[in-house]
Amino acid sequence: MDEARFVEFLKERFPFSHGIGIGDDASVVKIGDDYQLITKDLLIENVHFSLDYYTLEEVALKSIAVNLSDIAAMGGKSQYFYLGLGFPKLLGEEANIDFFNALEKGCRQWQVELAGGDFSSAAHLYISITMIGRAKKPIYRHNAQAGDLIGITGVTGESAIGLMLLKKGIHAGPLMEKHKTVVPEIIKGPILANYVNAMIDVSDGLLIDLKRVLTASGKGAKIFYENIPVTKEMQETCSLHQLDEHEPVLAGGEDYVLLFTIAPEKEKELRKEHIDYYIIGEITPQPGELIILDKGKLIQPRTNGYDHFRS
Amino acid sequence: MDEARFVEFLKERFPFSHGIGIGDDASVVKIGDDYQLITKDLLIENVHFSLDYYTLEEVALKSIAVNLSDIAAMGGKSQYFYLGLGFPKLLGEEANIDFFNALEKGCRQWQVELAGGDFSSAAHLYISITMIGRAKKPIYRHNAQAGDLIGITGVTGESAIGLMLLKKGIHAGPLMEKHKTVVPEIIKGPILANYVNAMIDVSDGLLIDLKRVLTASGKGAKIFYENIPVTKEMQETCSLHQLDEHEPVLAGGEDYVLLFTIAPEKEKELRKEHIDYYIIGEITPQPGELIILDKGKLIQPRTNGYDHFRS
Repeated sequence: MDEARFVEFLKERFPFSHGIGIGDDASVVKIGDDYQLITKDLLIENVHFSLDYYTLEEVALKSIAVNLSDIAAMGGKSQYFYLGLGFPKLLGEEANIDFFNALEKGCRQWQVELAGGDFSSAAHLYISITMIGRAKKPIYRHNAQAGDLIGITGVTGESAIGLMLLKKGIHAGPLMEKHKTVVPEIIKGPILANYVNAMIDVSDGLLIDLKRVLTASGKGAKIFYENIPVTKEMQETCSLHQLDEHEPVLAGGEDYVLLFTIAPEKEKELRKEHIDYYIIGEITPQPGELIILDKGKLIQPRTNGYDHFRS
Repeated sequence: MDEARFVEFLKERFPFSHGIGIGDDASVVKIGDDYQLITKDLLIENVHFSLDYYTLEEVALKSIAVNLSDIAAMGGKSQYFYLGLGFPKLLGEEANIDFFNALEKGCRQWQVELAGGDFSSAAHLYISITMIGRAKKPIYRHNAQAGDLIGITGVTGESAIGLMLLKKGIHAGPLMEKHKTVVPEIIKGPILANYVNAMIDVSDGLLIDLKRVLTASGKGAKIFYENIPVTKEMQETCSLHQLDEHEPVLAGGEDYVLLFTIAPEKEKELRKEHIDYYIIGEITPQPGELIILDKGKLIQPRTNGYDHFRS
């Protein structure tokens, strides 16, 4: 069973009567005048990261950041979180304090608070954060409309290339930093929420996350590859390591930019907000259709992105 | 640093502006007319349980139950939860489905819903559940009053003896079941909330959890051991294995009964609710005092209970 089918299985087996449960970046429950968003992301040693090339501070900050990204992708603002921490005794008490110092730094940096949790020794470092947020108007994956423009808020692929280099033992450089240091779009998310129809954060790869929007919305898409931003650094690194740039850009994963769909007239209004984004395609009415053109030439990527069940 | 000091360190470093954060069985945030309670408990393979003597169904149900117990201890009703699951690939897809079947069974049994989460492969089975609940009037640890009676809702020590037997390779019998099958006090918790001053669930041992109440409230306690319920099964098992019964009863852990303190006049009213509980002592004004009498004779247990940092 792949991840998409597994999520469908869970949605069917676990109906949610309080609001929107399984299947988006966060659950949504109406509370008072606005909506409470709750998301949960795991970071497990030797699955999501290795302490060979991550410091504890980097791991702690990333564990908060990936959850902030989920709340931002729903158009919300993160407020506080709960930490489930399995911490190897071998790392020692000082390392444990380092971890909490980093967590405190993250709290200050992103204006969120630690509200509780549970702590245990464990064979590997295991971090489970549940983030609570709020939104006036949550944005879902399932509301993309035919004719919508498709936008992204930043570059994709650099994180994946950075990870590849880290795994090769190259531990310094800007793309490695891109992989290790997640910059969640906490400012843009709530602004975009006032204009867009659908939104998701690109955590598993541009195409796989776009497909999640298409599937949820019953729509298709046309992507103009040449509109996707690719930095000089990225081009040079790909060329140096003889890599086809298309694959990391389209299927890389862990980019944590926001992907959104927006009506053309709303996109005109959005320009007045002066936030950076790139229009990379458009939503088509045909369910499941996905056409990728690079300067008019059809391209077909080898993989769609990271599937938690297959990798 | 022991657990109590670590919690103090965290409370100081992570102030919570939305309500009551770190330091009780759950956080408390006022939302609308009542209070939202959130708790998070980890279950980690080979730390909290072993698959040598737990079935996946037992682990899944326990992972829900321990969180229900925390919400009940705050006088609340659990509503829905988020699951962070690290699942070993080696166990196979069928085992994974078994796990979710058990989770569904737990949802039906306890009237809670799965609202979301995250899933990953992992070297060991990791379960992190964040439970959301509600209370009209949350009950804290810090409100015990001098002169309060101390009550518990059930027996203690059987779970610890059960675990000891399981570790010895004895895998059948009622005390083993007591350890593996947590029966959270979801009915009694909200009823008690109408009468008691302070409450906690006994997860780490009667004395250690009582001390948490005493420390938080700045009070002392006198315990009358002979009032603590001990079953015939427990007495016979202790005698068979030449164990001093006092230790598991006072310091056993994983009992998941509720311990509460209640004004004597309120206790009279509580009797009309016809729920089972036992008055085992009283709160004294002297901070930190803890006197345990067995039919008038002073006893001093060797340990207080399970400390997550020392064990």
